[in-house]
Amino acid sequence: MVDFELHILGCGSASPTTRHLATSQIIRWGDKLYMIDCGEGTQVQMRHERVGFGRLNHIFLSHLHGDHCFGLPGLISTFGMLGRTADLFIHGPEGIEDYLQPILTRFCKGLSFRVQFHVVDAYRHGLVMEDRSLKVYAIPLKHRIPTCGYLFEEKEKEAHLIREMVDFWQIPVKLRQGIKSGNDYVTPSGQVIPHAQLTRPPSPPRRYAYCSDTAFYPDGVVPLIRGVNLLYHEATFAQADIARAIETGHSTALQAAEIARLAEVGKLVIGHFSSRYKTEDMLKQEANRVFAATILADEGLVIPV
Amino acid sequence: MVDFELHILGCGSASPTTRHLATSQIIRWGDKLYMIDCGEGTQVQMRHERVGFGRLNHIFLSHLHGDHCFGLPGLISTFGMLGRTADLFIHGPEGIEDYLQPILTRFCKGLSFRVQFHVVDAYRHGLVMEDRSLKVYAIPLKHRIPTCGYLFEEKEKEAHLIREMVDFWQIPVKLRQGIKSGNDYVTPSGQVIPHAQLTRPPSPPRRYAYCSDTAFYPDGVVPLIRGVNLLYHEATFAQADIARAIETGHSTALQAAEIARLAEVGKLVIGHFSSRYKTEDMLKQEANRVFAATILADEGLVIPV
Repeated sequence: MVDFELHILGCGSASPTTRHLATSQIIRWGDKLYMIDCGEGTQVQMRHERVGFGRLNHIFLSHLHGDHCFGLPGLISTFGMLGRTADLFIHGPEGIEDYLQPILTRFCKGLSFRVQFHVVDAYRHGLVMEDRSLKVYAIPLKHRIPTCGYLFEEKEKEAHLIREMVDFWQIPVKLRQGIKSGNDYVTPSGQVIPHAQLTRPPSPPRRYAYCSDTAFYPDGVVPLIRGVNLLYHEATFAQADIARAIETGHSTALQAAEIARLAEVGKLVIGHFSSRYKTEDMLKQEANRVFAATILADEGLVIPV
Repeated sequence: MVDFELHILGCGSASPTTRHLATSQIIRWGDKLYMIDCGEGTQVQMRHERVGFGRLNHIFLSHLHGDHCFGLPGLISTFGMLGRTADLFIHGPEGIEDYLQPILTRFCKGLSFRVQFHVVDAYRHGLVMEDRSLKVYAIPLKHRIPTCGYLFEEKEKEAHLIREMVDFWQIPVKLRQGIKSGNDYVTPSGQVIPHAQLTRPPSPPRRYAYCSDTAFYPDGVVPLIRGVNLLYHEATFAQADIARAIETGHSTALQAAEIARLAEVGKLVIGHFSSRYKTEDMLKQEANRVFAATILADEGLVIPV
């Protein structure tokens, strides 16, 4: 099966610390990379984590707070110095171009590639990007400014040919692709062997959902992420600081776990930790009480979807 | 004597690596901090190096290339979150306000302090800032865009009273400050004891010069930095890559050492290393052939002026 994994580059919140960097993640599907958010220091963290710069063509921004996008000017400058030629697509809420274009005009004259801005409607669960491997949808969130998460969904796969049946019926190579895609097989004598007898159904498409930053928003989020294999949900605060979470439009670890439980996801990884905590052990304990399959995000952590 | 030292936060060049961060330095004079340049990741490096955020009021930018200023938006945001109230002064060539103000307007609404921009004429050796401890002058450099270095000079100090003379003449406490500042002492019987007999001359003001980024520019730079205690000069390239240095408006290690030799400085520290070198040993060897007291910059290095 193709590798599909989440690589955490940074999982701190607004104030970076020596323990956690500003938010950024890499989604790897096969040999393709996708980035979600790009806080200050992301390009250096990519070097530390040996993430290649050449295979990244799409960056998805959840919202325009600095800890989620102040790494973009440096990253784009570096792409330029590396002689990149492929278009770079930046998807994000209204305002991304107004923020970045003046900086690119001033600092990145004569770039060897185009930066294409794609405004995402943060209030609508719509398709944001589709390529041969994945579909990416917006997940409207509830924060202080327009903010959306992203759902990464593998595309429908083809059925698997059953090797023994192929051999038994001596199916010619040129017909096999059609059978994978749904055809029956007609033997030279005219006998019809149905598709279902020749194939096993494809494994179900895997899905990853990213939800940061957001207040506790089960009505909006849960129906859109139901049953995903992996959920990243912000858990800026512990339940003891819920007043601060409400005030700032963030979630507690308990609330993140409650979303995971309601949506019946496979695994939960929590992040966007407040700098006030010297360790996140109590956030994990708090989440575990509601949802056992909870992992703490950490810089460098790689999790299969 | 008051501590006066240079603290290197980052000494890489345009492409940050796992070995060197983008440019930033802290000048410490007593309990005051001054920053020169602020590349991406500076605020995180300040945390790693335990540099306090509260005592920094002046930031000096050499020029508007991203590797010297992309850390400012994040640093200013963090100052805001820490509840800073003191004005922050940002000195730098024309364009600093056009670059930063739109970002502050978008990302740093309701800051609890004022950011004051002070445009420096990068083509003139003028006084940029003066406080009770230091005077800071611009050093015009030769780069692809308007660029200046900075000369940090301690203010003239007072003479030191000679303890034995004070005791011998029984000089009243209230007159001593005046004598330090240049007065003679007149005894109750009318005898005049000259200032020079009562005091030792003050230690000469210490000076630090920062020269980055610049092509080899001895005619412009040497007269302005003659005899400084400590010189930081960029040495992006080795002499073998001088063609690249000329093309990009940078210096080689040999050229940096030549500037130090011509200006008869006390010590030279070289930095702004190109990412093409896996080690800087050969840059140091190259510089040492011309100027023995050469140090390689490194993240975290602290050098007394």
